[in-house]
Amino acid sequence: MRNLKISAIFLLMGTFALNAQSLKSPDGKFEMNFQLKSGVPFYNLKYQGKTVVEDSKLGLRLLKDNTISFGTDIKNNEGKNLNADFVKTDEKRDSKNESWAPILGEKKEYINNYNELAVTLNQPKEDRSIIIKFRLFNDGLGFRYEFPQQKNLNYFVIKEEDTEFDLPSDHKAFWIAGDYDTQEYQPQTTNISEIPQRWATSFDGNASQTPIPNAVQSPLMLKRNSDNLYVNIAEAAVLEYPASNLEVDAVNFKFKTHLTPDAQGAKGYIQTPAVSPWRTIIASPKAEEVLASKMLFNLNEPTKYKDTSWIKPTKYIGVWWQMFVPGRGSWNYADVDNVKLGVTDYTKLTPNKTHAANNENVKKHIDFAAKHGFDAVLVEGWNEGWEDWFGKSKEYVFDFVTPYPDFDIKMLNDYAHSKGVRLMMHHETSASATNYERWMEKAFQLMNKYGYNAAKTGYVGNIIPRGEHHYSQWMINHYIRVAEKAAEYKIMINSHESVRPSGQSRTYPNWIAAEAARGTEFEVFGGNNPDHTTILPFTRLMGGPMDYTPGIFQTQINYYDKNDKRFVKTTLAKQLALYVTMYSPLQMAADLPENYEKHLDAFQFIKDVAVDWDDTEILSAEPGDYIHIARKAKGKDEWYVGGITDENARNFVVDFSFLPKSKKYEATIYEDGKAADYINNPQSYNIYKKTVTNKTKIPVKLARSGGYAISVKESK
Amino acid sequence: MRNLKISAIFLLMGTFALNAQSLKSPDGKFEMNFQLKSGVPFYNLKYQGKTVVEDSKLGLRLLKDNTISFGTDIKNNEGKNLNADFVKTDEKRDSKNESWAPILGEKKEYINNYNELAVTLNQPKEDRSIIIKFRLFNDGLGFRYEFPQQKNLNYFVIKEEDTEFDLPSDHKAFWIAGDYDTQEYQPQTTNISEIPQRWATSFDGNASQTPIPNAVQSPLMLKRNSDNLYVNIAEAAVLEYPASNLEVDAVNFKFKTHLTPDAQGAKGYIQTPAVSPWRTIIASPKAEEVLASKMLFNLNEPTKYKDTSWIKPTKYIGVWWQMFVPGRGSWNYADVDNVKLGVTDYTKLTPNKTHAANNENVKKHIDFAAKHGFDAVLVEGWNEGWEDWFGKSKEYVFDFVTPYPDFDIKMLNDYAHSKGVRLMMHHETSASATNYERWMEKAFQLMNKYGYNAAKTGYVGNIIPRGEHHYSQWMINHYIRVAEKAAEYKIMINSHESVRPSGQSRTYPNWIAAEAARGTEFEVFGGNNPDHTTILPFTRLMGGPMDYTPGIFQTQINYYDKNDKRFVKTTLAKQLALYVTMYSPLQMAADLPENYEKHLDAFQFIKDVAVDWDDTEILSAEPGDYIHIARKAKGKDEWYVGGITDENARNFVVDFSFLPKSKKYEATIYEDGKAADYINNPQSYNIYKKTVTNKTKIPVKLARSGGYAISVKESK
Repeated sequence: MRNLKISAIFLLMGTFALNAQSLKSPDGKFEMNFQLKSGVPFYNLKYQGKTVVEDSKLGLRLLKDNTISFGTDIKNNEGKNLNADFVKTDEKRDSKNESWAPILGEKKEYINNYNELAVTLNQPKEDRSIIIKFRLFNDGLGFRYEFPQQKNLNYFVIKEEDTEFDLPSDHKAFWIAGDYDTQEYQPQTTNISEIPQRWATSFDGNASQTPIPNAVQSPLMLKRNSDNLYVNIAEAAVLEYPASNLEVDAVNFKFKTHLTPDAQGAKGYIQTPAVSPWRTIIASPKAEEVLASKMLFNLNEPTKYKDTSWIKPTKYIGVWWQMFVPGRGSWNYADVDNVKLGVTDYTKLTPNKTHAANNENVKKHIDFAAKHGFDAVLVEGWNEGWEDWFGKSKEYVFDFVTPYPDFDIKMLNDYAHSKGVRLMMHHETSASATNYERWMEKAFQLMNKYGYNAAKTGYVGNIIPRGEHHYSQWMINHYIRVAEKAAEYKIMINSHESVRPSGQSRTYPNWIAAEAARGTEFEVFGGNNPDHTTILPFTRLMGGPMDYTPGIFQTQINYYDKNDKRFVKTTLAKQLALYVTMYSPLQMAADLPENYEKHLDAFQFIKDVAVDWDDTEILSAEPGDYIHIARKAKGKDEWYVGGITDENARNFVVDFSFLPKSKKYEATIYEDGKAADYINNPQSYNIYKKTVTNKTKIPVKLARSGGYAISVKESK
Repeated sequence: MRNLKISAIFLLMGTFALNAQSLKSPDGKFEMNFQLKSGVPFYNLKYQGKTVVEDSKLGLRLLKDNTISFGTDIKNNEGKNLNADFVKTDEKRDSKNESWAPILGEKKEYINNYNELAVTLNQPKEDRSIIIKFRLFNDGLGFRYEFPQQKNLNYFVIKEEDTEFDLPSDHKAFWIAGDYDTQEYQPQTTNISEIPQRWATSFDGNASQTPIPNAVQSPLMLKRNSDNLYVNIAEAAVLEYPASNLEVDAVNFKFKTHLTPDAQGAKGYIQTPAVSPWRTIIASPKAEEVLASKMLFNLNEPTKYKDTSWIKPTKYIGVWWQMFVPGRGSWNYADVDNVKLGVTDYTKLTPNKTHAANNENVKKHIDFAAKHGFDAVLVEGWNEGWEDWFGKSKEYVFDFVTPYPDFDIKMLNDYAHSKGVRLMMHHETSASATNYERWMEKAFQLMNKYGYNAAKTGYVGNIIPRGEHHYSQWMINHYIRVAEKAAEYKIMINSHESVRPSGQSRTYPNWIAAEAARGTEFEVFGGNNPDHTTILPFTRLMGGPMDYTPGIFQTQINYYDKNDKRFVKTTLAKQLALYVTMYSPLQMAADLPENYEKHLDAFQFIKDVAVDWDDTEILSAEPGDYIHIARKAKGKDEWYVGGITDENARNFVVDFSFLPKSKKYEATIYEDGKAADYINNPQSYNIYKKTVTNKTKIPVKLARSGGYAISVKESK
């Protein structure tokens, strides 16, 4: 007994001496320090000697540890927490400097270069250990908790993860309200210290929403007031673990993880061996370097898919926007309040004559897609069930295999294929995930049968299993199940209302894009502010491509209904620029064909622009203000440049030094017209051509919420 | 406006005059009266002029009515309730007198004879209507709520159903504690007035339990103290609706429905047209008539299955009881704490040498089954995952398709088939219902491939989707999904830890039996009282067959471990009697083959006894005391008689007047030995033969918790 005590004290003393570890980034600019203070783990982060994150606590609280025993109620139990009473028992260092090729991406190769420190922490009384693993890159820090399989830690339930990010001073923050069920809020720009006062008025209504008081979502973009250091806090590889929000301590400029609970309030059922997502802090004095960071992807595992040749960048149009604007069509086939799949005989319902996914209209879209070189046509509302799909907590809402009577699935697919176009499948689940899991295999088989290779999924409404949330562990697992099952059928997934990506498209490259933020459709719901798309690349897009669905030429809704005062808050030229500034290997031309036909000269840019890239250069960027990006098309000697601004008109000079030396190209510049303005004159644009070399500089003028797009091709 | 008011008043006056309706049973003995009192619906029930149930309220409270609108939280909303402000707008009467043949049953034909009253009730302000439908049989009353599809009632969420059963005086009650997750409690016998004081000590621990304070389960058996009227309160056709418990008002002798909630506390998501389960009240001065009632089946719909020829009565043995007694085997293959399906390589684990479902042991069981004419051999623990299957809230716990390394699924099935025996599949889900739904189709395909035709399912532990309960609406739908999917593959289901049946085997006849009560396994958990099986037929079995798994010959567990004082609380002869008294078309001989081999003379009864019947006569019965039943084997000139008693020894005279006239039969009587006693001398029995006719009377002596069994065959 005495020996045991002495050795325990010795161990504690030993660890006291050894309990501060330092880690530097490969370029030496970042330094991370880890230490145990009285058994509690802390880390901090410095950039060029200046503190980015002060000493911040690490750890998790548990509801149940090891086993959940016979007949117990999960809610009334607490396990021994994994946040204190630790001694350090091991430390391992490693480093890596490699490059890897994304299946689809912004560059041909991404560099993965870091130094690693893995600290093993033991709770002597419970005799159980966790590892905290830090990876310090030249763009910032990633760290995670690892839970090795061991005798005294096989199963546990997380009450909360309490990872802190304690900033030294106030920052300007680009944030949306924390929520368990939606990310479709308007970004807010305030100081951290001002978040609490803005929080309650920062969000509008959503089909499913559970706001978390005084919390914000990640990725969170920050800019330090004292010296303009840009800091991005996010998470990578959110797998088998709920997505997190960040609780705000606005007095101490501190954030803390807040995981999404399940129906029982539990925040993750863990079976060891297991790991948490990576917590990430990207920092740079240059905003452009934050945008260029690929850290979230580097922290995900390479894909295990053996064959990825079927994963294709895709440009598409859709039977879609017409359902959002007045008087142009509906998802539903009949105007009734109550249908039951397999019971309701649709051939006996009176068609409402507004159903958009009808043979004639889809054929017109196929013709348009074929004529203009699009890969695919999305058709929403093709299947039975849309009459009462929404807001009823109806579990068996769609079967994903039964077309409406006026949608001839075989004929339309045959017709599309005969013209070199594919139809894109639509799987709106109404957030009834259990039902989708029952049907998805049959749904994918149907897709294979008719030659679809991509599905847009949707999760509008409250989740079934009831009480689960869009970002709780069960749903995170669901999204992965869908991606993996789709991969078995060589199907690409574009998920809407799903969790924000955290770089997992590296591992599941057929999960080609997601919405998971406020997309173009909100232009007719509550509007997107002019600065919205200058913030999204710093937040939502850090973890993966967004199906933002740009390309609205007819921005004023009074075109459809003269009394409708809503409008898309950009100029037409800015809509073009979004194809470059909003990276996605899946891009929609969202507007109606009739609107493109009126502006075929401007439409040419959408037809030309690549969606997969060999290289990307962030020319200039400032969150909330502007973004200018140049990209080289995959496998082609072609470049595309896009620039956007917020509600302020701006001048910019495009410097073509990104081009190879001593070669001439023909640039086509699509810019705002001289009198263009997103409110008063959005459709004013000017197109001109110019020969350019890598010495060329072209000044551009961006209207209020305007932009420009430039295609750069070899001179003929 | 004035006109509207006047007509509303006129309507109310009109309904005041018309608002009492009376309904009589076909034999005139029962009378049901319905009336609206100030807009609130009430019913009462009389038997031969005496009140069985006093004026009792009807109605439901709602969380949300019609629509669940954009972005609302289900928990914080109340709809307009369906329990008041009604006017009667229509009344329809109907009657039926038919007989129908159950696929498997206690008689060749069941009689369905009732008078019906359907009252349409309208809430004028909301302009929406419900129907309350009453069916009065010669054995009692059934009634339900019907929700027709209509403009103002398409969707709603139930907060609670408040159907009352207001009894006029105190009754003796045979009850178990109300619970959302288990029915495996010991029955209690007290007056209604004494339930509250007994409630808290009435239940023991269970793998999943959520007791409902001061509530009891249905079917609830009652006996009126004043005049010994037997009353049974139950429910029939619990489909797409949660199962109910009964809240007790012990002062007023009143019960009220208490539905099982979901994870959000909601008690049913209803899309019209819909109906509630039937609420049933069976009453008779004779306990035997209660046992003979088929009302719960009559209130279910005939099956829609076109072919039912594959649904077969089944007598089986199993690799099962040996896992419950000490030192004889385990479900798991290796003694490790933590496995992951598809990751753990079982061929590299050290076998624990106790794994019961090994090739050699299963072959021995097949040999035994073949030798003694059993249809099937259940094998539990055949598949990967049992190492950590329990109590971990582990979702991916089994895949139902991967055998352990020492279970050669093809060889064993081939071997069984070569001997005219089938293996019975085991699908323990660990209550991870979402996981089972993902796998069950593959599991049924595997069963078809190898020639299994029946699966025992199990739901041990807390339900996943987490927060759902074993009897909540989602799980009720799950059990039906399983039955329907199994039927597609011509597979019979025997479900354990599932909801108590409510006669739905009429509609889903392949759901051949269920446990859903405290079965034989509890003899080694906490023990079953001697009166347990004299109560179950009056409660649990009213709604359908129970897989009670009788046939334990070696009742004393010290046979396996001399220090183990547990014992099965019956004599051996009573175990034989249970094959007759506990109706099921699926009967197990649960003991180890070695124990049968020591008593082959007594075992002969188990070999002989039928499991499907042309006719049944309840000779004598008293809940909590004794049951004597005679049954005629299906399609054979054979009868089987069984009698059991509680902790009291009893004499009984078996009157063979149920036999056809003027024909001689050979009866084999299996009775308790003279010194038999369930504690001191359980294995003492006496077997003798006697020629019998329909004039014969045979006295039998039942030991304490003893019984007797008689086979009656044509004399040779």
